[in-house]
Amino acid sequence: MFEYFCAEHAKIPIIINSDKKIMDAYIISIGEELLIGQTVNTNASWLASQLNLAGIAVNEILVIPDKEETIAEAIKNAGNKADIVLITGGLGPTKDDVTKNALCAIFETKLVLNQNVLEDIKTFFGRKNLKINELNEQQAMVPEAAEILPNPFGTAPGLWFNQKEKQYIAMPGVPYEMKEMVLNHVLPRLKDSNTRFHILHKTILTHGIGESFLAQKITNWEHSLPDFMNLAYLPSTGIVKLRLTAKGYNAEQLQSSINDAVEELKQIIQEYIWGYDDDTLENLAGKQLLERKQTLAAAESCTGGYLAHRITGVPGCSAYFLGSIIAYDNAMKEKQLGVDKQLIEKYGAVSEEVVAAMVRGTIESIGSDYALGVTGIAGPSGGTSEKPVGTTWIAAASRSRIISRQYSFGDNRERNIVRATNAALALLHELFREESPKNKV
Amino acid sequence: MFEYFCAEHAKIPIIINSDKKIMDAYIISIGEELLIGQTVNTNASWLASQLNLAGIAVNEILVIPDKEETIAEAIKNAGNKADIVLITGGLGPTKDDVTKNALCAIFETKLVLNQNVLEDIKTFFGRKNLKINELNEQQAMVPEAAEILPNPFGTAPGLWFNQKEKQYIAMPGVPYEMKEMVLNHVLPRLKDSNTRFHILHKTILTHGIGESFLAQKITNWEHSLPDFMNLAYLPSTGIVKLRLTAKGYNAEQLQSSINDAVEELKQIIQEYIWGYDDDTLENLAGKQLLERKQTLAAAESCTGGYLAHRITGVPGCSAYFLGSIIAYDNAMKEKQLGVDKQLIEKYGAVSEEVVAAMVRGTIESIGSDYALGVTGIAGPSGGTSEKPVGTTWIAAASRSRIISRQYSFGDNRERNIVRATNAALALLHELFREESPKNKV
Repeated sequence: MFEYFCAEHAKIPIIINSDKKIMDAYIISIGEELLIGQTVNTNASWLASQLNLAGIAVNEILVIPDKEETIAEAIKNAGNKADIVLITGGLGPTKDDVTKNALCAIFETKLVLNQNVLEDIKTFFGRKNLKINELNEQQAMVPEAAEILPNPFGTAPGLWFNQKEKQYIAMPGVPYEMKEMVLNHVLPRLKDSNTRFHILHKTILTHGIGESFLAQKITNWEHSLPDFMNLAYLPSTGIVKLRLTAKGYNAEQLQSSINDAVEELKQIIQEYIWGYDDDTLENLAGKQLLERKQTLAAAESCTGGYLAHRITGVPGCSAYFLGSIIAYDNAMKEKQLGVDKQLIEKYGAVSEEVVAAMVRGTIESIGSDYALGVTGIAGPSGGTSEKPVGTTWIAAASRSRIISRQYSFGDNRERNIVRATNAALALLHELFREESPKNKV
Repeated sequence: MFEYFCAEHAKIPIIINSDKKIMDAYIISIGEELLIGQTVNTNASWLASQLNLAGIAVNEILVIPDKEETIAEAIKNAGNKADIVLITGGLGPTKDDVTKNALCAIFETKLVLNQNVLEDIKTFFGRKNLKINELNEQQAMVPEAAEILPNPFGTAPGLWFNQKEKQYIAMPGVPYEMKEMVLNHVLPRLKDSNTRFHILHKTILTHGIGESFLAQKITNWEHSLPDFMNLAYLPSTGIVKLRLTAKGYNAEQLQSSINDAVEELKQIIQEYIWGYDDDTLENLAGKQLLERKQTLAAAESCTGGYLAHRITGVPGCSAYFLGSIIAYDNAMKEKQLGVDKQLIEKYGAVSEEVVAAMVRGTIESIGSDYALGVTGIAGPSGGTSEKPVGTTWIAAASRSRIISRQYSFGDNRERNIVRATNAALALLHELFREESPKNKV
């Protein structure tokens, strides 16, 4: 995360951020689908995270419709507010995409046919054994004043305008097309030109304690942070992230101040911390399993495959993850996991006894070194007064040890699935720690 | 979706939308976590979709940092642009939340202790057997000029300001707290006061054809749409959504025009349409299975549980979904699904023979009426020149029939998982259609 430190700044004293000193960006996302809520704006958050890592602050993110005048007005306004204006969307082949016209209007240029782009489009379709149609050909009409950014995954090229020391960069809205363009063409150039200022983040990831209780525990520490550092609380489903931000010119000194603050924080809330920055519970679990050369399998009921999905979201997981039995139906718990029918009848499918039998059955039938088991009532129906919706039993087991625990989540199905999955992965980390105290974070 | 039609408008002629005639909203999302890309702005898209269904247009969505002056400026500006300003975030108990101060500054009011809110907060913590702390108590300090919206799921109440016929509504940023507030307090009031104008959407969901080819096929139909209607193309992973929008006063006439357009469209691209509006492949599959009183199970390799997760995302799915075997490891394909080891050795795990054996094994060992099977190379590694990353075999089977098909997705792991899942569910629909031609959409 800190690879962008520059040694040449080491002697410059740390200063408090001032908006004038920092290279900044304004993101404009274009598309009716964002304004009617049909599409979530993942493009803007991805862009923001990438810019931030490059030491460029994002001032604002604006979402506007596919209307030529609105687009033109927004781009002009953004240019007054930031050094770099990043625009996504509205470059597609269809009638509702008008960004190119807006760009021509404000930069007083016109659309011209670009032969290179046309060739790229033909190659793109050729690879798929498809013939180019008229709409695709129009994609090769680009503003004369723009520098062209190639789009290997699609037909709309990126457009870069350098106007009075401000950079305006228009890109397609299809996420993977935009991302390739940013990573290979936009960020390298922006990073090269950014020698002004550093913003460093360090995020501390906790599980098992609510935001306000965490805040109370660390209030003295928080108040003792220096002026150039600040703390934000980011609560999500079962996890609270603490994000420390430091801003200034002296990257080395900033990093050392952040490291000191984190060390102090660890003294206070060690038992709740499970990772840092972009760590995920599943990534860290994978690393531990790879180190130990051991394997994991799972048995899921209420999480319905989401636990396996999270684990298999990690590239290379096939080295340690054998698989999962999604035993949604009780008969599957019996047949595939060997859970005794009488246990289910006596204690119910959501019980300590059954979750323990599930993880034991998983280790036995799949042959893994570790197993995770989840059984619960995700909702909206299925709850009783004794076991309301949200009641969940989770177990983590090795060949010699089982930890199992009951959780009371809420009454929202979607959230319960995520919470149970986070809790299961956190329980696996707890088991790892119990087994090898040296491995404590 | 069309339950908000008002009979009283039936006689008013359809007019082309003009921004002056329509109740509109401006969404402001507050939080550094959105600007550094740590959190995706799902709040804004959810809010936008709800407002839209209530016939209220969202003009713009703006994301700004937790800075008092920036917040105050943005709220003022939003009030000039729209009838309703919805603000989320920055109301939490921690030091970085300053929205309340900004609201007091622009509406010239001050923070006062609200006893009702304090009681609510105490009750909230009491239910969890927790004692209230000082930070939580501060949540009961609210702007004197604001009307209070209760927050049963959290400690920050909503704040509603009615200023010169403009409505300003500030809500917490935690998604489920905000959603409860919007559904139970904000939308009912806004709907009551909105008798001006209707925006109707109808989205047609297609699979199996790319955006530009679809556009070419329906170009004549698109050009024949009346002026008060427009079409947008929303491509996502393997699916292209066509969104028809109609705007005007006469809701009945708008609806009938949309229905006519959809009927005409069905004549042209029937075979690619699998659903409408908020339909999902998994929801529709669930409905079909419920109707048929039949069950489904799955066997997944490269989708790693995501297929089961999508299927179990549907409330009530336990009536028809028995479970899934995530056979990530080949040994699990053999042991849990009864796939012949020699088949895997001879044809490879990613082959027509193995996927067919997987679905047959699923039906046999789990006892379901239908089975879906997926085996592929999600990437980034594992590809060969013969079977590059993205190569995927998918099968859908009933007790008497199997459809299997090879797909060549791309080289992005995450996207391949989603594409394979969509393709598997689409293949199940194809099997349903083949089995009962009457059920064709």
